[in-house]
Formats: sequence, structure tokens, C-alpha cells
Amino acid sequence: MAHHNFTPTHYHSTIGWHEPVLTIQSGDTVTTTTVDAGGKDKDGNQATPRGNPQTGPFYIEGAEPGDSIAVTFDHLMPNRAWGHTSARIAANVLDPGYVPKFDDNITRIIWAIDFENGTASPAEMCEGRDQTTLGDGQPTTGYLKDLTLPLNPHPGCFGVAPPREQAISTATSSTHGGNMDYKRFNQGTIVYLPVFAEGALFHIGDGHALQGDGEIVGTGIEISFDVTFTVHLHKGKTIGWPRGENDTHIFTVGNARPLDQCIEHATTEMIHWLKSDYGIDERTVHVLLGEAVEYDMGNMFDPAYTMVCKVPKSVLETMGAKRS
Amino acid sequence: MAHHNFTPTHYHSTIGWHEPVLTIQSGDTVTTTTVDAGGKDKDGNQATPRGNPQTGPFYIEGAEPGDSIAVTFDHLMPNRAWGHTSARIAANVLDPGYVPKFDDNITRIIWAIDFENGTASPAEMCEGRDQTTLGDGQPTTGYLKDLTLPLNPHPGCFGVAPPREQAISTATSSTHGGNMDYKRFNQGTIVYLPVFAEGALFHIGDGHALQGDGEIVGTGIEISFDVTFTVHLHKGKTIGWPRGENDTHIFTVGNARPLDQCIEHATTEMIHWLKSDYGIDERTVHVLLGEAVEYDMGNMFDPAYTMVCKVPKSVLETMGAKRS
Amino acid sequence: MAHHNFTPTHYHSTIGWHEPVLTIQSGDTVTTTTVDAGGKDKDGNQATPRGNPQTGPFYIEGAEPGDSIAVTFDHLMPNRAWGHTSARIAANVLDPGYVPKFDDNITRIIWAIDFENGTASPAEMCEGRDQTTLGDGQPTTGYLKDLTLPLNPHPGCFGVAPPREQAISTATSSTHGGNMDYKRFNQGTIVYLPVFAEGALFHIGDGHALQGDGEIVGTGIEISFDVTFTVHLHKGKTIGWPRGENDTHIFTVGNARPLDQCIEHATTEMIHWLKSDYGIDERTVHVLLGEAVEYDMGNMFDPAYTMVCKVPKSVLETMGAKRS
Amino acid sequence: MAHHNFTPTHYHSTIGWHEPVLTIQSGDTVTTTTVDAGGKDKDGNQATPRGNPQTGPFYIEGAEPGDSIAVTFDHLMPNRAWGHTSARIAANVLDPGYVPKFDDNITRIIWAIDFENGTASPAEMCEGRDQTTLGDGQPTTGYLKDLTLPLNPHPGCFGVAPPREQAISTATSSTHGGNMDYKRFNQGTIVYLPVFAEGALFHIGDGHALQGDGEIVGTGIEISFDVTFTVHLHKGKTIGWPRGENDTHIFTVGNARPLDQCIEHATTEMIHWLKSDYGIDERTVHVLLGEAVEYDMGNMFDPAYTMVCKVPKSVLETMGAKRS
Repeated sequence: MAHHNFTPTHYHSTIGWHEPVLTIQSGDTVTTTTVDAGGKDKDGNQATPRGNPQTGPFYIEGAEPGDSIAVTFDHLMPNRAWGHTSARIAANVLDPGYVPKFDDNITRIIWAIDFENGTASPAEMCEGRDQTTLGDGQPTTGYLKDLTLPLNPHPGCFGVAPPREQAISTATSSTHGGNMDYKRFNQGTIVYLPVFAEGALFHIGDGHALQGDGEIVGTGIEISFDVTFTVHLHKGKTIGWPRGENDTHIFTVGNARPLDQCIEHATTEMIHWLKSDYGIDERTVHVLLGEAVEYDMGNMFDPAYTMVCKVPKSVLETMGAKRS
Repeated sequence: MAHHNFTPTHYHSTIGWHEPVLTIQSGDTVTTTTVDAGGKDKDGNQATPRGNPQTGPFYIEGAEPGDSIAVTFDHLMPNRAWGHTSARIAANVLDPGYVPKFDDNITRIIWAIDFENGTASPAEMCEGRDQTTLGDGQPTTGYLKDLTLPLNPHPGCFGVAPPREQAISTATSSTHGGNMDYKRFNQGTIVYLPVFAEGALFHIGDGHALQGDGEIVGTGIEISFDVTFTVHLHKGKTIGWPRGENDTHIFTVGNARPLDQCIEHATTEMIHWLKSDYGIDERTVHVLLGEAVEYDMGNMFDPAYTMVCKVPKSVLETMGAKRS
Repeated sequence: MAHHNFTPTHYHSTIGWHEPVLTIQSGDTVTTTTVDAGGKDKDGNQATPRGNPQTGPFYIEGAEPGDSIAVTFDHLMPNRAWGHTSARIAANVLDPGYVPKFDDNITRIIWAIDFENGTASPAEMCEGRDQTTLGDGQPTTGYLKDLTLPLNPHPGCFGVAPPREQAISTATSSTHGGNMDYKRFNQGTIVYLPVFAEGALFHIGDGHALQGDGEIVGTGIEISFDVTFTVHLHKGKTIGWPRGENDTHIFTVGNARPLDQCIEHATTEMIHWLKSDYGIDERTVHVLLGEAVEYDMGNMFDPAYTMVCKVPKSVLETMGAKRS
Repeated sequence: MAHHNFTPTHYHSTIGWHEPVLTIQSGDTVTTTTVDAGGKDKDGNQATPRGNPQTGPFYIEGAEPGDSIAVTFDHLMPNRAWGHTSARIAANVLDPGYVPKFDDNITRIIWAIDFENGTASPAEMCEGRDQTTLGDGQPTTGYLKDLTLPLNPHPGCFGVAPPREQAISTATSSTHGGNMDYKRFNQGTIVYLPVFAEGALFHIGDGHALQGDGEIVGTGIEISFDVTFTVHLHKGKTIGWPRGENDTHIFTVGNARPLDQCIEHATTEMIHWLKSDYGIDERTVHVLLGEAVEYDMGNMFDPAYTMVCKVPKSVLETMGAKRS
């Protein structure tokens, strides 16, 4: 149960079978940092090219294909006082043919982080895509200036080496995790990931100070992070898609297009989970989900979209269903 | 501001340009009843054939194409102590090729309503599709018996006469409303609907005691209702899709397939709303939605699916944005 | 086997349970006319409002729900020398965010029909949507002027009264047929339609002089038609979706969104057809379709898209499979 | 203009930035072989694990990101007398909930190739998935035995190294090509591919003796091939998606899900092509495609589907539009 402090020296823009940067044991904790989606670090320096660069991969000793790992997000917090977002909803989220009539040329918003109050607000507007640092833009005005949202730090992109020795762009996601951009992968959440490569090879990056459902502008508030996570290896526990749990829910994640297919994957994975680990018969699982399931949208921007299937822990408790 | 008590004598299985059953003025309130999706009334009698039969239509004096109406759900409550659900998740919600291996032939669950505690529980299981009355089945056992969920009464299907003199099945939905099966159309919610026909012709039915997101088994707890609603006419206020609001959110509704298209309609409608009624410039609307939007799933079962785009009222208040 | 000459006096912009205009017997032939999608007749007069107005409905004596009808398109020919098309590909057919940069404001093209050579060519360009008559626009120039395409007359929209007493807009399609915009519903083709209402109630309209796959600009060459068709009643022959055949293929039609769902409906319907009418066992049907199926796109513009599943008659003949 | 004979010694189950097996010049021709999708060679020996193993990659001297390559398929022919197909249509191609009722346990069909007549026929049926060699199964009977289809050899999977140093499974496809399973990539066709890596790194494999539209059973007739192709480098000619041409058509390819998105990519790419290389103004391109476009389905089985947008060369010729 060692606690490792790891300082990254390079980053990956694919999640793949890359050379591990650190080997850890099941139960170990890692404290490290991630750069923002554009490759900038806590001082705003360009540490690596843009594109959701990942810290890692971390090799979990003993992990083999067919196993899964549980990653607890112990601590997730921006490590600088500004982040940036896009300023336009993606065309694929809006009616075909809808073309916005903007009265400015703004492409990027710089948000200021208020750590004391745990909020973020739009501070500056920039016309260039690469202006992402406080001081790059003009001060915001009007309604935009007064917009204030609560921080909800989460990594937009993390995962394990995908099957078949693939190296998959951090722009997208699949069974191995990846760029899921789901805002409830936040501090305190436990994530379960299938293992496809020896050592699992866990990557993490693309911190968001906060994000709306769907990442519909193509960004959360993109920012560099301090990260602490703990990994447990679940030998022989095979899962099909990323899973997770927090204080109130267990959940499963489907990454695909269209959103319908995400739902299909996530819901089927939830059925498997409730049957195998909670010992609930298939009929009861169907009836239970029919009247108690909840769905969240992760993202509807990336090449693969993300939908999440959730079941309240309180309902499982009322039923007396316990996880084995 | 009259209060009408209306007792239905017939029902419609399409939403269309049907003969009105009652003419009301803007501001009037109507108290009436609806039968369940299978056509059974509060005494379990078969009042009309199955298929989400609608009470109405109600003619709102002065309503013309281009207007909209606001319907406040003042009171929505089951008027009998049992309802029924399907017992199987629809194939289109699960991975293609997934075939459940049930160890029973159950097709229908009869739920008992506990009005005192405001909950519902599976009481009986039936093997026939038409057995929907308490006493038709065998007592539930095990985990299923102990499942208890809080009541959340809402009408699965309601709407106004669609454009072009169409009569559209109550199985589906579109711009006129219809079978949206969205669980947050519950008591206290205000719904806004576009007007396509003179008098708007408001229909309502298909009460659910509660429902999970997506109506993924094809039913909520199907039950007959006592209903009270108040209608206000908004002259000249043109909207494109159903809208709504409750204590915490304003929201817009998109009905289509796949889910992606629902999101496109709902999000575009929300942009229009925030621009025209809240006076927020288009750029700020895009930035706001990007980091603060929420999405709910109405249904992923009916011929048209339903997704809902939501904005927290608290965020709009922080910005100082008020509805004109 | 009577031959009726019918002159329409009014038209319908929904396909529904409308009053029949003529009652015919199984085996009878009807010669009639249709106006163009904009409601203009052979003389360019506005006979009825725009929106794919339908001639009919025709009542087939003895047709009942559960039967099907076979409609042979004996003769389909424009009855005037000009038609019109839209001038822009629909946004839903192109990459989200793609916005064309036109150097003109053209919205409509008037095409001249060359009956002698059996071709059509763009003759004039108009800036107004309602300019659809030869003489309304400016002469075409350059590449556009020299575009010449072979005539392929077919009705964009036809069908029978839909189930459940619905009246469905002629903008869309479903199991009852409707606005399928499939270019191979041309002269000589036999179409099979399910019967949902007594008398079937056959409607036809929306003639196209020719059309590309997908009707991706939202129109074929819209034109008024002389039409002759023969109807046979198939008692007790229940089908799920429109079917058809021509000299080379049998085919089934799926109408839905997205295109994927069209394929699902059409392919499943083809399996049923090959099993029930050709007596081919299900395994062989799967193997046969796997290596010999063909798909055409009807439309990717209307509220419901259309895809067509085809099997070459020559392959069935080689196998010795004959229709019972 | 050298002609290389290359004998593969290993294969790749991803298309990626792999070590080249041969360096060639623009204009050079390569004659080589490919194993079947299951990794078996011309003698039926297991040369490499299953999964559409690729021969290559071939390094084209001078190719850089932003260029494109033209690959002419000079010769494509099975080099053994048997191939195999799946025996069941994929669930995602059929109505959700449709479950076939087979009266056998057949999973695989062995087809015999008749080189003299240029046809293939089902020769044997096997119950195991790995039985793929003539002699592994029982003789076919009935309609299945008499099924005979014309050979149409084409590689199901080929492409160049994808962007961002990805290694993408040969199960799927994207802008770099990949497992498109399009039956008209046959002998005589020229394919254009974008270049993302130095040397382009061309891979090829997964030969099909023939295939139906959509590869709806998940296979064509899987077989090992003799292959000869010629590569030309187009310096500075940037394209977005695979393109191609044969005697009758030029075409563009979109790989994604759902089919709708494939159409969006392919049609937008065709607009770019007609504008930039044929000098046709955007308005004329829209009108031309509206009435003359054709669409083919590549596959509706793989993780990414494939649709193809086609324009007849004869129409372009009539217009006088020539490629620059």
C-alpha cells in the first residue's frame, strides 16, 4: 500500500501499449499531475502538444487480460487559477441547418477559478483558438461576466491500454475508457476498468474544473490538475465496459455512436453487473431497471459519444441486494 | 377563471383535430379523470380499448396557430390502488443479439400503491399480457417483493392537435407533444405547447404512478388518474417544441429518433428560448449551455424517443437573466 | 376488370381514413392525374395548396385489415413540359458545420422536359421558393445548363390509410407507405401494401420526372403526372412493410430514422417474405442475403428516411426457389 | 516504375505506424499475397492469428502528411479453391427482438470456388466457428446447395497509417481506410487515400471472393488472395476520406456510425472533390448531386459502418466537366 509521488516528463496523445512510467502494486496510491487538454501545465507552460495529453501509463503488477482494476479518485483539483472553454456549441448537437448569428468573433473563454468559494466564472474572451491563458483576452461583460458555476473537478479522459495492441486517440473512447467527458467521474468516485494488456497500463489527463452534460461546446473548463488515485486489482473479475460508483449510485458506461448505442452497451452491462455481483435474477433486474433506472449523458461531442446507466444504491438496499 | 369538472364519456387513441368535449377560457381550471394505458378506469372496468386513450380534447377559446398554451399540472394522482408494468426491457435498449434467459414466463407485474407512504411495490406477477388487475397474478417473492419506489405521478401522453390536420397515434410524439413518457411532467410542472389548430385541442391520458428514465420496459406503472390542470393562452407566443418549467429548471423537449436528433431539437429550442425571452445574446447562450446544461431522457421505447434539455433557474438568477 | 377514368376535384395532404373518391374491384385499372408537390396541375394552375397533395383515396372492394393489395404502375408520365427542384442539399445530409458558400441566391431550378429524348435539363434558375413555372427564372448557364439526365417518372408519395385511424402527413412515411421518394417505384413496378382500413384507401401523388438517390435536395423534379395503375386484392395475405418487384428484383422497404432502422425493418421483412412465400428455410435465407443482398436508398430527407432491401430474381431462379 | 514481388513473413491486426516491409517509389507495382480473415494462407495453413491480418505496410518514398496516394488494383484473385462465410445475419441489421428460429446449429459455410465459370457455391456446412476448410463440414443440400453467385474479388480491409500515431484495429475503419468491406473495391478500381504518416504505410488484406451489400452476416467469402497493385503519389493533394473510381463512377467513402453519418462524410467529400478538381461551382454541385447522386452500402456490420457516394462519369462528361 505504497504512496508514490510521480512527476511526469512526457505525455501520450493515444491510449495504448506504451512503455510504463511507473510500476505499482494493487492497493498503491499515486499522486501526480496532469496538463490541460491543450498541453499546458500549472504554470501555463506548453509541456507537450495539444490533444488531451495523458500522464502515464502506470503498470499495475499482476494485472492480466480478463482482470479488471478499480481506480479510486482520492483527490482531483485544478492546480492553477484559470482554465478555458470553447465558445460555441458543436454543430452536431444542434438542428441541421441552424447557423448561429454571433455579434462577435469570440472563440475561447478564459475562466477564473475561485478556490475559496469553489466556483469558476468567465473572466476573458479571446478571438484566437490558441489564446488560453489569463491575460490573453478582453474582460467579459454583461450576463457572461456574472455567470458563476460550482467547481466539479474531473478528468475528461482516462483509461487502460485497449485490446489488440491498439493505440487509440485520446479524442475518443471505447471499452477501454478514453475521452468519456463524464462530469460524475469526480473526486470520491471509484471507476472499474477492464484489463486488456499486462499491467493494465492506466493513463489519465484532460482535467476539467467543471463541465455541463454532454460537453456540447467540445470542452469543459480545460485546466491542469493535481491528482491522487488508488488502484486495486480485481483478479479474474471480467467486465465489458467501464463501471463506477459514488455515494449514491452504481453506474455503467457505454461509448459509441449514436447515443442509442451507448445506452444499449451501458444498460446491457448493468444487467450483467446486477445479475453476477448482486445475485438478482434476470427478471427482477428487468423490472427494477424499468422503473428505477436513471441515465446521464457524458458527452455528445467526441467521435464516440458517452451515456451512463445508473441505479440508486438506496433502491438496492431497500431490496436487500448486496454486492458479493 | 372558471373551474370545470369534466367526466369523460369517450376517449381517443390519436391526438388530432377531434370534436372538443369542453370549451374553456384562458385561465380556467379543469378537473377530470384519465383511464390507464390499457383503457381501464378507477374501478378496473374496461372503459375503452387499450392504447394510451386520451381524455379530451379541450378547446381553449381564442387559441390560434402561432400561439402557445401553458398547462399547469395542479394535481396528478392515481385514483386506484394498483397499476401494472411490463416485465422485460425492450430489445432496442439492449445490445443487439442480447437475449435474456428468464427462468419464468412472467409478462406483467401488478404493483400495489401505498398512498400513505407515497410508494409502490410489485405485488403480483402474471403470465398473460392482459392480466393487469390486482388478483390476476401470483404473489411476488424475493428481491422483487421488497422493491419499493416513491410515487411520482405524471401523464405519459398529452398534447395538442398536430399541424396539417393530422391525427397521430398516442403511441408516438412530435412537436405537438404526445407520448413523451417523461417522468418530470409531474405535479407542479408547467408545460408549454405550440398551437396548430383553432382552440389548441388539449388531450391528456396514460397516467404513470412512477417510471424510470427512458420507459425502457415500455411502461411506467400504468394507472388511472385524477387530474386537475389550468390552461393559459399565450397569444402570439410561437414556440417550436414542448417546453416546461418546475421549481428548479426550465426545460425543452425534443421528440424524434435517434436520441441524437432529440438532443438537436431540444437544444436548439433552448437557445431560441434563452435569446428571445431572457434577452441573453447568442454567444453567452452558447457558453452558458456548454458548461451548465443538463439532459434527461424521457423515453427510448416509443416510435419517437424523447430527450429533455434543462437549465437550472439558479444559474439564470445568478446571471441576473429574467424572463420577459 | 373495369378501367376507370377518374378526374380529381380535391386532394389530401395527409394519408388517412378519408372519404373515398372511387370504389373499384380487385383487378380494376384506374387512369387519373396527380398535381405536383406544390399543388400545381398540368397547366401550371394552383389546384390545391402545396405539400405533396394526393389523388384519392380509392376504395378497393373487399379489402380488410390483414389483407394486402398489389398496385401495378402501368403508366407514369409527366403531363407537362417543366418541373422544378430545390437547389441546395439538405443540411442533415452533409457534415454538421458544413455551410455552403454559394455565389448566388438561387433557391429553385426549373427543368425542361424533353419528351422526345426522354430527358430533363435545368432551364431556369429562380431566387424565390414559389417560382416553379417555366418563365419564372433566368436562363441557366455553364455546367448547369449542360446537365442532362434521363427521365425516370415515379410517384414520390403513395400509400394506404394507416392503422388506428391515423391521418399522417404526406411529408413522411411508415408501414402504410407515404413519402418514400424511392426512384425505383417507376413504371412497370408492382408495389405491395398492407391493408389497415376497410377498402385499403389508396392515395397517390407527388410525381417526380426523375430523382437522385436519397432525394437529398428535398425534391426530385416535381411535376404533374398522368397515372394508370391496376390494383389486385390479396385476401388474407398479411405483410408488415411495403414490398415491390420489377423485372430484375424483389424488394422490401423500411421507413424510419436513422437509416440503420430502415435497414432493420426492410431486411427483417425480406426474411419473412423469402421464408413464407418462397419456402426457403431460415438458415438458407440468412446465407443467401449475406452474400447476395443489395440495398438502395429511397430518401434521406423526409421526417422518416427510406431504405430498400433487394434480392435479384436471377439468384432465386438459380436456386430453384419459386414464389407460391 | 519497378515491379516488386513481395512474400510476406508476418502480418498486422492493426493498421498503424508499423515497420515497413518494403519501400517503393511512386509508380511502382507490387505483387504479393494476403491471408484470409482468419489468418489462413493459400494452403489452408494458419499463417498468423485471425482478425483480418494485413500484408505490409508498404512505404511510398516521399509521401508526407497532406499528400494522398492512388492505389490501382491491377489484379485481385483468390489463390485457393475454397472460402468461408458466416451463416447468420448480424442482430444489428435486423429488427430488435427478432430472434431467428433455425432448425440447425450451422455457424459456418464453406464455399467452393469455380474458377472456370467465375462463380462460388456453398459446398459444406459446419457447426464450429473454426471449421473453415473444405472437408470440415457436411455437404450442403436443397436450395442452399444450388445457390451460385458470380465471383467479385475485393479486399475487405486496406488502408494507410492513421493520424496521431494511432494503431487502429483491422475490425474497423475511419479516414485512413480500414475494414470498409465495400464490394466495388474490385479489380480495376483506383483508390485514393489520404497520407497521415511519412511513407503513407499502405496495408492490405481480408480478401473476399464476393460479398453482398453491407456484409450483413459479418463476412464475405473469406479467402486468401494473389494481389497486384500500383501506387502513385499525389504530392500536396489533400483529401479527407477515401475516394475511388472505376469505369463508370467516381466515388467517396464515409466510415462511421450510424449510416447517416457515413452519408454526411461521403457526400461532403464529394462536394469538395467536384468543386476543387472538376471546377464545378458549389450551386451546380448541389443541383447535380440532388438529381444524379447514387449511394452504395459498404458494410453495416463492423464497429464503423461504410456508405459510398457515387457520381456517374457519363453525367460529368455530358456536362463537359473534366478533372484537372
